[in-house]
Amino acid sequence: MQGPGRFITLEGGEGAGKSTQARCLATHLARRGLPVLLTREPGGAPGAEAMRRLLLGGSGLDPLAEALLVFAARRDHLVSTIRPALAAGMWVISDRFVDSTRAYQGAGQGVDGAAIDSLAAIALEGRMPDLTLVLDLPVATGMARARQRGVAADRYERLDTAFHQRIRDAFLAIAAAEPARCAVVDATPDAGAVARDIAALLDTRLP
Amino acid sequence: MQGPGRFITLEGGEGAGKSTQARCLATHLARRGLPVLLTREPGGAPGAEAMRRLLLGGSGLDPLAEALLVFAARRDHLVSTIRPALAAGMWVISDRFVDSTRAYQGAGQGVDGAAIDSLAAIALEGRMPDLTLVLDLPVATGMARARQRGVAADRYERLDTAFHQRIRDAFLAIAAAEPARCAVVDATPDAGAVARDIAALLDTRLP
Repeated sequence: MQGPGRFITLEGGEGAGKSTQARCLATHLARRGLPVLLTREPGGAPGAEAMRRLLLGGSGLDPLAEALLVFAARRDHLVSTIRPALAAGMWVISDRFVDSTRAYQGAGQGVDGAAIDSLAAIALEGRMPDLTLVLDLPVATGMARARQRGVAADRYERLDTAFHQRIRDAFLAIAAAEPARCAVVDATPDAGAVARDIAALLDTRLP
Repeated sequence: MQGPGRFITLEGGEGAGKSTQARCLATHLARRGLPVLLTREPGGAPGAEAMRRLLLGGSGLDPLAEALLVFAARRDHLVSTIRPALAAGMWVISDRFVDSTRAYQGAGQGVDGAAIDSLAAIALEGRMPDLTLVLDLPVATGMARARQRGVAADRYERLDTAFHQRIRDAFLAIAAAEPARCAVVDATPDAGAVARDIAALLDTRLP
Protein backbone atom coordinates (compact mmCIF):
# COMPACT_ATOMS: atom_id res chain seq x y z
CA MET A 1 0.00 0.00 0.00
CA GLN A 2 1.55 3.28 -1.08
CA GLY A 3 0.54 6.80 -0.14
CA PRO A 4 -2.94 7.97 0.78
CA GLY A 5 -6.06 6.37 -0.61
CA ARG A 6 -8.33 7.71 -3.34
CA PHE A 7 -11.96 8.74 -3.09
CA ILE A 8 -14.24 7.86 -6.01
CA THR A 9 -17.98 8.59 -6.15
CA LEU A 10 -20.65 7.36 -8.55
CA GLU A 11 -23.55 9.64 -9.35
CA GLY A 12 -26.53 9.59 -11.68
CA GLY A 13 -30.30 9.26 -11.90
CA GLU A 14 -32.58 6.29 -11.33
CA GLY A 15 -31.69 3.13 -13.25
CA ALA A 16 -28.24 4.37 -14.30
CA GLY A 17 -26.56 1.35 -12.71
CA LYS A 18 -24.59 3.10 -9.97
CA SER A 19 -24.75 0.24 -7.46
CA THR A 20 -23.80 -2.36 -10.07
CA GLN A 21 -20.91 -0.27 -11.36
CA ALA A 22 -19.73 0.52 -7.83
CA ARG A 23 -19.46 -3.23 -7.15
CA CYS A 24 -17.72 -3.85 -10.49
CA LEU A 25 -15.24 -1.05 -9.77
CA ALA A 26 -14.54 -2.40 -6.28
CA THR A 27 -13.86 -5.85 -7.72
CA HIS A 28 -11.65 -4.38 -10.47
CA LEU A 29 -9.52 -2.46 -7.96
CA ALA A 30 -9.34 -5.38 -5.52
CA ARG A 31 -8.07 -7.64 -8.34
CA ARG A 32 -5.26 -5.16 -8.83
CA GLY A 33 -4.33 -5.68 -5.18
CA LEU A 34 -5.71 -2.39 -3.92
CA PRO A 35 -7.49 -2.19 -0.54
CA VAL A 36 -11.07 -1.12 -1.29
CA LEU A 37 -13.93 0.19 0.82
CA LEU A 38 -17.34 0.13 -0.90
CA THR A 39 -19.92 2.38 0.74
CA ARG A 40 -23.07 4.31 -0.13
CA GLU A 41 -25.25 7.28 0.76
CA PRO A 42 -27.33 8.17 2.52
CA GLY A 43 -25.71 6.06 5.22
CA GLY A 44 -22.30 4.42 5.44
CA ALA A 45 -21.78 4.93 9.19
CA PRO A 46 -23.92 3.99 12.23
CA GLY A 47 -25.34 7.48 12.88
CA ALA A 48 -25.77 8.11 9.16
CA GLU A 49 -27.66 4.82 8.73
CA ALA A 50 -30.12 5.90 11.43
CA MET A 51 -30.63 9.15 9.52
CA ARG A 52 -31.05 7.17 6.28
CA ARG A 53 -33.99 5.37 7.87
CA LEU A 54 -35.55 8.76 8.70
CA LEU A 55 -34.98 10.03 5.15
CA LEU A 56 -36.38 6.97 3.40
CA GLY A 57 -39.24 6.52 5.84
CA GLY A 58 -41.27 9.42 4.53
CA SER A 59 -40.37 11.86 7.27
CA GLY A 60 -42.57 14.68 5.97
CA LEU A 61 -39.57 17.04 6.03
CA ASP A 62 -39.48 20.04 3.72
CA PRO A 63 -36.67 19.89 1.11
CA LEU A 64 -34.36 22.19 3.12
CA ALA A 65 -34.74 20.14 6.34
CA GLU A 66 -34.06 17.08 4.22
CA ALA A 67 -30.89 18.69 2.81
CA LEU A 68 -29.70 19.51 6.35
CA LEU A 69 -30.37 15.94 7.45
CA VAL A 70 -28.55 14.58 4.39
CA PHE A 71 -25.52 16.70 5.26
CA ALA A 72 -25.61 15.58 8.92
CA ALA A 73 -25.51 11.99 7.65
CA ARG A 74 -22.78 12.86 5.13
CA ARG A 75 -20.66 14.48 7.82
CA ASP A 76 -20.91 11.31 9.90
CA HIS A 77 -20.11 9.21 6.82
CA LEU A 78 -17.03 11.37 6.14
CA VAL A 79 -15.73 11.44 9.71
CA SER A 80 -16.55 7.86 10.77
CA THR A 81 -15.93 5.96 7.54
CA ILE A 82 -14.41 7.81 4.58
CA ARG A 83 -11.61 9.79 6.25
CA PRO A 84 -10.27 6.90 8.36
CA ALA A 85 -10.29 4.60 5.31
CA LEU A 86 -8.45 7.16 3.15
CA ALA A 87 -5.96 7.75 5.95
CA ALA A 88 -5.33 4.00 6.01
CA GLY A 89 -4.57 4.09 2.28
CA MET A 90 -7.80 2.54 1.04
CA TRP A 91 -9.63 3.31 -2.18
CA VAL A 92 -13.08 4.46 -1.11
CA ILE A 93 -15.94 4.02 -3.58
CA SER A 94 -19.21 5.68 -2.63
CA ASP A 95 -22.52 5.04 -4.38
CA ARG A 96 -23.76 8.68 -4.30
CA PHE A 97 -22.23 11.65 -2.47
CA VAL A 98 -22.55 15.45 -2.47
CA ASP A 99 -23.61 15.84 -6.12
CA SER A 100 -26.78 13.84 -5.41
CA THR A 101 -27.87 16.58 -3.00
CA ARG A 102 -27.21 19.24 -5.61
CA ALA A 103 -29.27 17.25 -8.10
CA TYR A 104 -32.13 15.87 -5.98
CA GLN A 105 -32.72 18.48 -3.25
CA GLY A 106 -31.37 21.34 -5.39
CA ALA A 107 -32.43 20.98 -9.04
CA GLY A 108 -35.14 18.44 -8.24
CA GLN A 109 -36.82 19.98 -5.21
CA GLY A 110 -35.83 23.64 -5.42
CA VAL A 111 -33.42 24.10 -2.51
CA ASP A 112 -31.19 27.10 -3.26
CA GLY A 113 -27.92 25.97 -4.85
CA ALA A 114 -25.85 28.48 -2.87
CA ALA A 115 -27.29 27.09 0.39
CA ILE A 116 -26.31 23.55 -0.66
CA ASP A 117 -22.81 24.74 -1.56
CA SER A 118 -22.50 26.41 1.87
CA LEU A 119 -23.63 23.24 3.61
CA ALA A 120 -21.12 21.24 1.58
CA ALA A 121 -18.31 23.64 2.50
CA ILE A 122 -19.20 23.43 6.20
CA ALA A 123 -19.79 19.68 6.39
CA LEU A 124 -16.97 18.43 4.14
CA GLU A 125 -14.20 20.91 5.00
CA GLY A 126 -12.90 20.63 1.44
CA ARG A 127 -12.86 16.83 1.25
CA MET A 128 -14.31 16.41 -2.25
CA PRO A 129 -13.95 13.19 -4.26
CA ASP A 130 -10.78 12.67 -6.30
CA LEU A 131 -12.95 11.37 -9.13
CA THR A 132 -16.72 11.44 -9.69
CA LEU A 133 -18.22 9.17 -12.33
CA VAL A 134 -21.52 10.60 -13.61
CA LEU A 135 -23.45 7.68 -15.12
CA ASP A 136 -25.62 9.25 -17.79
CA LEU A 137 -28.50 7.88 -19.79
CA PRO A 138 -31.82 9.12 -21.19
CA VAL A 139 -34.54 9.50 -18.57
CA ALA A 140 -36.92 7.08 -20.31
CA THR A 141 -34.23 4.37 -20.42
CA GLY A 142 -33.36 4.85 -16.74
CA MET A 143 -37.00 4.77 -15.65
CA ALA A 144 -37.63 1.59 -17.66
CA ARG A 145 -34.59 -0.09 -16.09
CA ALA A 146 -35.65 0.97 -12.59
CA ARG A 147 -39.11 -0.53 -13.21
CA GLN A 148 -37.56 -3.75 -14.55
CA ARG A 149 -35.67 -4.28 -11.29
CA GLY A 150 -39.03 -5.46 -10.02
CA VAL A 151 -38.74 -3.80 -6.63
CA ALA A 152 -41.31 -1.34 -5.34
CA ALA A 153 -40.82 2.12 -6.78
CA ASP A 154 -38.99 4.35 -4.30
CA ARG A 155 -40.10 7.88 -3.61
CA TYR A 156 -38.03 9.36 -6.46
CA GLU A 157 -39.03 6.74 -9.00
CA ARG A 158 -42.65 7.73 -8.49
CA LEU A 159 -41.97 11.31 -9.56
CA ASP A 160 -42.61 12.54 -13.09
CA THR A 161 -40.36 12.69 -16.13
CA ALA A 162 -39.78 16.44 -15.81
CA PHE A 163 -38.31 15.87 -12.33
CA HIS A 164 -35.95 13.19 -13.64
CA GLN A 165 -34.94 15.38 -16.57
CA ARG A 166 -33.94 18.13 -14.11
CA ILE A 167 -31.85 15.57 -12.21
CA ARG A 168 -30.08 14.45 -15.40
CA ASP A 169 -29.45 18.04 -16.51
CA ALA A 170 -28.09 18.93 -13.05
CA PHE A 171 -25.58 16.05 -13.05
CA LEU A 172 -24.40 17.02 -16.55
CA ALA A 173 -24.07 20.67 -15.49
CA ILE A 174 -21.98 19.67 -12.44
CA ALA A 175 -19.72 17.54 -14.64
CA ALA A 176 -19.31 20.41 -17.11
CA ALA A 177 -18.51 22.87 -14.32
CA GLU A 178 -15.98 20.61 -12.59
CA PRO A 179 -14.23 18.68 -15.37
CA ALA A 180 -11.09 18.00 -13.33
CA ARG A 181 -13.12 16.04 -10.78
CA CYS A 182 -15.96 14.61 -12.88
CA ALA A 183 -16.21 12.29 -15.85
CA VAL A 184 -19.45 11.54 -17.68
CA VAL A 185 -19.89 7.85 -18.50
CA ASP A 186 -22.42 6.71 -21.09
CA ALA A 187 -24.57 4.29 -19.09
CA THR A 188 -26.66 3.12 -22.06
CA PRO A 189 -24.61 0.00 -23.00
CA ASP A 190 -24.80 -3.24 -21.02
CA ALA A 191 -23.19 -3.36 -17.57
CA GLY A 192 -20.06 -5.20 -18.76
CA ALA A 193 -19.31 -2.59 -21.40
CA VAL A 194 -19.85 0.29 -18.95
CA ALA A 195 -17.55 -1.42 -16.42
CA ARG A 196 -14.82 -1.68 -19.08
CA ASP A 197 -15.26 2.01 -19.96
CA ILE A 198 -14.93 2.93 -16.28
CA ALA A 199 -11.81 0.77 -15.86
CA ALA A 200 -10.22 2.46 -18.88
CA LEU A 201 -11.20 5.87 -17.57
CA LEU A 202 -9.55 5.13 -14.22
CA ASP A 203 -6.26 4.28 -15.93
CA THR A 204 -6.09 7.82 -17.33
CA ARG A 205 -7.71 9.74 -14.45
CA LEU A 206 -6.12 7.99 -11.46
CA PRO A 207 -3.08 6.18 -12.92
CA MET B 1 -56.79 37.47 18.49
CA GLN B 2 -55.07 40.42 16.85
CA GLY B 3 -52.23 40.45 14.39
CA PRO B 4 -49.48 37.87 14.06
CA GLY B 5 -48.22 35.86 17.01
CA ARG B 6 -45.01 36.32 18.93
CA PHE B 7 -42.07 33.96 19.24
CA ILE B 8 -40.38 33.71 22.65
CA THR B 9 -37.47 31.39 23.48
CA LEU B 10 -35.96 30.43 26.82
CA GLU B 11 -32.26 29.67 26.98
CA GLY B 12 -29.71 28.90 29.67
CA GLY B 13 -27.52 26.21 31.15
CA GLU B 14 -28.38 23.11 33.20
CA GLY B 15 -30.62 23.68 36.22
CA ALA B 16 -31.58 27.24 35.20
CA GLY B 17 -35.28 26.37 35.29
CA LYS B 18 -36.09 26.83 31.61
CA SER B 19 -38.80 24.17 31.44
CA THR B 20 -40.48 25.39 34.63
CA GLN B 21 -40.39 29.00 33.49
CA ALA B 22 -41.64 28.08 30.00
CA ARG B 23 -44.71 26.46 31.63
CA CYS B 24 -45.22 29.44 33.96
CA LEU B 25 -45.01 31.85 31.04
CA ALA B 26 -47.47 29.78 28.98
CA THR B 27 -49.92 29.83 31.88
CA HIS B 28 -49.41 33.56 32.40
CA LEU B 29 -50.16 34.35 28.74
CA ALA B 30 -53.10 31.94 28.57
CA ARG B 31 -54.63 33.66 31.61
CA ARG B 32 -54.47 36.88 29.67
CA GLY B 33 -56.55 35.21 26.97
CA LEU B 34 -53.73 34.72 24.50
CA PRO B 35 -53.48 31.55 22.39
CA VAL B 36 -50.25 29.83 23.42
CA LEU B 37 -48.16 27.04 21.94
CA LEU B 38 -45.55 25.59 24.31
CA THR B 39 -42.82 23.63 22.55
CA ARG B 40 -39.20 22.59 23.04
CA GLU B 41 -35.97 21.64 21.29
CA PRO B 42 -34.59 19.44 20.11
CA GLY B 43 -37.94 18.23 18.83
CA GLY B 44 -41.31 19.94 18.58
CA ALA B 45 -42.42 18.29 15.32
CA PRO B 46 -42.68 14.63 14.23
CA GLY B 47 -39.49 14.53 12.14
CA ALA B 48 -37.62 16.65 14.68
CA GLU B 49 -38.67 14.32 17.52
CA ALA B 50 -37.19 11.37 15.63
CA MET B 51 -33.96 13.35 15.30
CA ARG B 52 -34.11 14.19 19.03
CA ARG B 53 -34.03 10.48 19.78
CA LEU B 54 -30.89 10.14 17.64
CA LEU B 55 -29.25 13.12 19.36
CA LEU B 56 -30.04 12.00 22.90
CA GLY B 57 -29.33 8.35 22.21
CA GLY B 58 -25.57 8.78 22.13
CA SER B 59 -25.21 8.71 18.36
CA GLY B 60 -21.42 8.96 18.35
CA LEU B 61 -21.62 11.94 16.00
CA ASP B 62 -18.82 14.50 15.93
CA PRO B 63 -19.89 17.99 17.11
CA LEU B 64 -20.32 19.32 13.56
CA ALA B 65 -22.53 16.40 12.47
CA GLU B 66 -24.51 16.98 15.65
CA ALA B 67 -24.91 20.68 14.78
CA LEU B 68 -26.13 19.76 11.28
CA LEU B 69 -28.62 17.29 12.76
CA VAL B 70 -29.80 19.89 15.30
CA PHE B 71 -30.45 22.35 12.47
CA ALA B 72 -32.30 19.72 10.42
CA ALA B 73 -34.56 19.19 13.44
CA ARG B 74 -34.85 22.95 13.98
CA ARG B 75 -35.84 23.50 10.37
CA ASP B 76 -38.61 20.90 10.75
CA HIS B 77 -39.67 22.50 14.04
CA LEU B 78 -39.85 25.91 12.35
CA VAL B 79 -41.71 24.76 9.24
CA SER B 80 -44.07 22.21 10.78
CA THR B 81 -44.86 23.84 14.12
CA ILE B 82 -43.56 27.37 14.79
CA ARG B 83 -44.40 29.12 11.51
CA PRO B 84 -47.97 27.77 11.23
CA ALA B 85 -48.66 28.69 14.87
CA LEU B 86 -47.32 32.22 14.42
CA ALA B 87 -49.32 32.61 11.21
CA ALA B 88 -52.42 31.60 13.19
CA GLY B 89 -51.70 34.37 15.71
CA MET B 90 -50.39 32.19 18.53
CA TRP B 91 -47.71 33.06 21.06
CA VAL B 92 -45.05 30.38 20.62
CA ILE B 93 -42.81 29.62 23.61
CA SER B 94 -39.86 27.35 22.92
CA ASP B 95 -37.72 25.77 25.63
CA ARG B 96 -34.37 26.19 23.81
CA PHE B 97 -33.74 27.33 20.22
CA VAL B 98 -30.83 28.54 18.09
CA ASP B 99 -28.77 30.05 20.91
CA SER B 100 -28.42 26.62 22.52
CA THR B 101 -26.51 25.45 19.44
CA ARG B 102 -24.22 28.46 19.64
CA ALA B 103 -23.60 27.70 23.31
CA TYR B 104 -23.43 23.88 23.40
CA GLN B 105 -22.04 22.84 20.01
CA GLY B 106 -20.16 26.14 19.53
CA ALA B 107 -18.66 27.38 22.79
CA GLY B 108 -19.02 24.01 24.52
CA GLN B 109 -17.78 21.61 21.85
CA GLY B 110 -15.72 23.81 19.56
CA VAL B 111 -17.79 24.01 16.37
CA ASP B 112 -16.81 27.17 14.48
CA GLY B 113 -19.19 30.04 15.33
CA ALA B 114 -19.28 31.31 11.74
CA ALA B 115 -20.37 27.84 10.56
CA ILE B 116 -23.20 27.83 13.11
CA ASP B 117 -24.28 31.31 12.02
CA SER B 118 -24.30 30.14 8.38
CA LEU B 119 -26.42 27.12 9.29
CA ALA B 120 -28.81 29.36 11.21
CA ALA B 121 -29.13 31.74 8.26
CA ILE B 122 -29.85 28.85 5.87
CA ALA B 123 -32.24 26.91 8.12
CA LEU B 124 -34.21 29.78 9.67
CA GLU B 125 -34.41 32.20 6.72
CA GLY B 126 -34.35 35.12 9.18
CA ARG B 127 -37.06 33.82 11.54
CA MET B 128 -35.35 34.68 14.82
CA PRO B 129 -37.29 34.91 18.11
CA ASP B 130 -39.01 38.19 18.99
CA LEU B 131 -37.72 37.79 22.54
CA THR B 132 -35.14 35.45 24.06
CA LEU B 133 -35.01 35.06 27.84
CA VAL B 134 -31.55 34.00 28.99
CA LEU B 135 -31.95 32.39 32.41
CA ASP B 136 -28.66 33.00 34.15
CA LEU B 137 -27.24 31.57 37.36
CA PRO B 138 -23.83 30.50 38.68
CA VAL B 139 -22.66 27.16 37.32
CA ALA B 140 -22.37 25.56 40.78
CA THR B 141 -25.96 26.54 41.64
CA GLY B 142 -27.29 25.18 38.35
CA MET B 143 -25.40 21.90 38.68
CA ALA B 144 -26.65 21.44 42.26
CA ARG B 145 -30.25 22.05 41.12
CA ALA B 146 -29.91 19.64 38.21
CA ARG B 147 -28.62 16.97 40.62
CA GLN B 148 -31.49 17.63 43.03
CA ARG B 149 -34.03 16.86 40.32
CA GLY B 150 -33.14 13.27 41.10
CA VAL B 151 -33.18 12.11 37.52
CA ALA B 152 -30.21 10.43 35.88
CA ALA B 153 -27.58 12.96 34.77
CA ASP B 154 -27.91 13.64 31.04
CA ARG B 155 -24.89 13.76 28.78
CA TYR B 156 -24.25 17.46 29.41
CA GLU B 157 -24.72 17.26 33.16
CA ARG B 158 -21.90 14.75 33.32
CA LEU B 159 -19.43 17.21 31.79
CA ASP B 160 -17.06 19.30 33.90
CA THR B 161 -17.44 22.74 35.42
CA ALA B 162 -15.23 24.39 32.79
CA PHE B 163 -17.62 23.18 30.06
CA HIS B 164 -20.63 24.63 31.88
CA GLN B 165 -18.80 27.90 32.49
CA ARG B 166 -18.19 28.20 28.72
CA ILE B 167 -21.92 27.63 28.17
CA ARG B 168 -22.86 30.34 30.68
CA ASP B 169 -20.35 32.79 29.20
CA ALA B 170 -21.62 32.06 25.68
CA PHE B 171 -25.25 32.79 26.59
CA LEU B 172 -24.23 36.05 28.29
CA ALA B 173 -22.14 37.05 25.25
CA ILE B 174 -25.10 36.38 22.92
CA ALA B 175 -27.37 38.50 25.12
CA ALA B 176 -24.80 41.32 25.17
CA ALA B 177 -24.38 41.18 21.38
CA GLU B 178 -28.14 41.13 20.63
CA PRO B 179 -29.77 43.29 23.32
CA ALA B 180 -32.84 44.08 21.21
CA ARG B 181 -33.75 40.39 21.08
CA CYS B 182 -32.34 39.07 24.35
CA ALA B 183 -32.95 39.76 28.04
CA VAL B 184 -30.91 38.21 30.85
CA VAL B 185 -33.04 37.00 33.76
CA ASP B 186 -31.45 36.26 37.14
CA ALA B 187 -32.48 32.65 37.72
CA THR B 188 -31.08 32.43 41.26
CA PRO B 189 -34.32 33.29 43.18
CA ASP B 190 -37.13 30.77 43.67
CA ALA B 191 -39.28 29.86 40.65
CA GLY B 192 -42.19 32.10 41.66
CA ALA B 193 -39.98 35.19 41.90
CA VAL B 194 -38.34 34.44 38.54
CA ALA B 195 -41.77 33.96 36.94
CA ARG B 196 -42.86 37.39 38.23
CA ASP B 197 -39.68 38.96 36.86
CA ILE B 198 -40.34 37.39 33.47
CA ALA B 199 -43.98 38.56 33.45
CA ALA B 200 -42.86 42.12 34.25
CA LEU B 201 -40.20 41.91 31.57
CA LEU B 202 -42.77 40.85 28.99
CA ASP B 203 -44.91 43.89 29.74
CA THR B 204 -42.06 46.17 28.67
CA ARG B 205 -40.56 44.05 25.89
CA LEU B 206 -43.71 42.76 24.17
CA PRO B 207 -46.48 45.13 25.38
